[in-house]
Amino acid sequence: MTQMMGKQSIQFEKAPHILCGASIVGKKEGEGPLGKLFDEIEEDPMAGQASWEEAESALQKRAAQMAIKKAGPSCGPVRYLFAGDLLGQLIATSFGVMDLQIPLFGLYGACSTMGEALMLGAMTVQAGYADTVLALTSSHFASAEKQFRFPLEYGGQRPLAATWTVTGSGAFVLAPKGGKARISGVTPGKVVDYGLKDSLNMGACMAPAACDTIYQNLVDFGRSPSDYDAIVTGDLGSVGQTILLELLDKKGFDIAKQHLDCGMMIFDAQSQDTHAGGSGCGCSAVTLAAKLLPMLEKGQWKRILFVPTGALLSTVSYNEGQAVPGIAHGVVIEHC
Amino acid sequence: MTQMMGKQSIQFEKAPHILCGASIVGKKEGEGPLGKLFDEIEEDPMAGQASWEEAESALQKRAAQMAIKKAGPSCGPVRYLFAGDLLGQLIATSFGVMDLQIPLFGLYGACSTMGEALMLGAMTVQAGYADTVLALTSSHFASAEKQFRFPLEYGGQRPLAATWTVTGSGAFVLAPKGGKARISGVTPGKVVDYGLKDSLNMGACMAPAACDTIYQNLVDFGRSPSDYDAIVTGDLGSVGQTILLELLDKKGFDIAKQHLDCGMMIFDAQSQDTHAGGSGCGCSAVTLAAKLLPMLEKGQWKRILFVPTGALLSTVSYNEGQAVPGIAHGVVIEHC
Repeated sequence: MTQMMGKQSIQFEKAPHILCGASIVGKKEGEGPLGKLFDEIEEDPMAGQASWEEAESALQKRAAQMAIKKAGPSCGPVRYLFAGDLLGQLIATSFGVMDLQIPLFGLYGACSTMGEALMLGAMTVQAGYADTVLALTSSHFASAEKQFRFPLEYGGQRPLAATWTVTGSGAFVLAPKGGKARISGVTPGKVVDYGLKDSLNMGACMAPAACDTIYQNLVDFGRSPSDYDAIVTGDLGSVGQTILLELLDKKGFDIAKQHLDCGMMIFDAQSQDTHAGGSGCGCSAVTLAAKLLPMLEKGQWKRILFVPTGALLSTVSYNEGQAVPGIAHGVVIEHC
Repeated sequence: MTQMMGKQSIQFEKAPHILCGASIVGKKEGEGPLGKLFDEIEEDPMAGQASWEEAESALQKRAAQMAIKKAGPSCGPVRYLFAGDLLGQLIATSFGVMDLQIPLFGLYGACSTMGEALMLGAMTVQAGYADTVLALTSSHFASAEKQFRFPLEYGGQRPLAATWTVTGSGAFVLAPKGGKARISGVTPGKVVDYGLKDSLNMGACMAPAACDTIYQNLVDFGRSPSDYDAIVTGDLGSVGQTILLELLDKKGFDIAKQHLDCGMMIFDAQSQDTHAGGSGCGCSAVTLAAKLLPMLEKGQWKRILFVPTGALLSTVSYNEGQAVPGIAHGVVIEHC
């Protein structure tokens, strides 16, 4: 049986298992609807460090160490690390994982990076290139605001379509066996550009990419939306969700019953003033670790399509008048 | 036979082939020692675009299209793309590959990115996840100066340890068969930090990482330096080379006879005023395409270790007083 499925997907003959996930988040995320589910809540936005960037690195390191500890000694040393973040030149990752001394594949897929890390990690494990790998991403509200938007002190107003970057890091240990969930297939996504230029409406920018990947996943695997207990996008937020459902409906798939969005799950938009929802590489990562993975592990869900979504922009591309294209990667996770 | 070799390497049972490489460079690179070997020389630093970043994107797109054309129709459509560049949030890549409409794994390993792309591309092909993949990276002197250093108009003086970012893009098509070179193994590298803080002496910052990866490759595969016709680092330059040879010598390996550095090959430092050598994601990529790969294809070399090297810094990490750690990825390429 070939492992290539349709136009752009892969089905794993020996689906790599997710041994465990670990999550660490900031204070605001801890106060949200998923607050009690996270492994650790760091109340100090600086995480005891000297800068926002070092704080984000510290979160990555702690999430990685927590996941390795949870996996236990029986799984052996982690052979390869697949990791990334939102900051220019991935500095949160480079400085975060340095002490781990694990060979690193540095990844950038904007907020879709956890999808990319899980895909490549699973591809590596099932091919026999490693017995244990770690998938790791992070984001930090303040380091992201500094990177992409305005100084916090400026106190700029945010439009209602804007999302709030999650402070947090999620880590997952993948191995050939163990654990109660496995990655049975993946659908790597393409860069999709609808020409939208509003970097404060990233949900709208990313929705076409999410549509493209979900559509292709359903076609490649010959599935209907009801074959999934949930189809969970990364951080489209409420504005992006509306667009996604409409776009997929036009392509013949109604996923209204299955669709969830990590960005909408992690904050209570009304009481927490986060507008359209949460976002960032950490958003889908910690939501998977704290909420989605346990639902699969307990068997409350049998199979989900996890689709982290990324908006591909930098301050340079934005200031030069470029559009904000999107990318989304699909990961099929099943109870086992 | 297991595919895992030693502590951190992989040996491919069915070594993926490099069908072809393609290179496009700027005017200065075209005037250098390898000038006549590049597929295309773009005399216009803007490549007909409106900004340096768009110019770099255009080079990526043209290199990718050239490689696909060279590979010919028999190799079928490219299923996955492994690509990256030096710019924050990989904008040269995102906007460069958009029109290709190929599922993208965005990679960041600083100037080591071509190593990362070739490793993951080879891992993907030999596992049967794709019949054809493309590995692609780029850099641009002006977009890199803008990203990392000073405005060009400022005319800042450069110390002798500094390197000159190569304007260029290299692309490689990998497939299970065809072509006259193959990737027989890989050694993904760790982040290595010796605490050096001089971002204008990146050769010194990266040499310890190159040493670590080359050492591990020799140990993992049980080889001595003479088992390679050449051990070619990415962009250590003359200062980094001296350090690398000394560090490896202390670990018991003398690679003086085998060592070459793409950064030292691509420019004539004396006449072209490039100081320690060339650098950038494009440097090792175009040197591999134009010089190293043809040497292997013709059988003048039987086996080389290609080791692109990256310096992990951003202006933020530098301004916050962080060190400049390095990373290096090893790719074993053989004549076949």
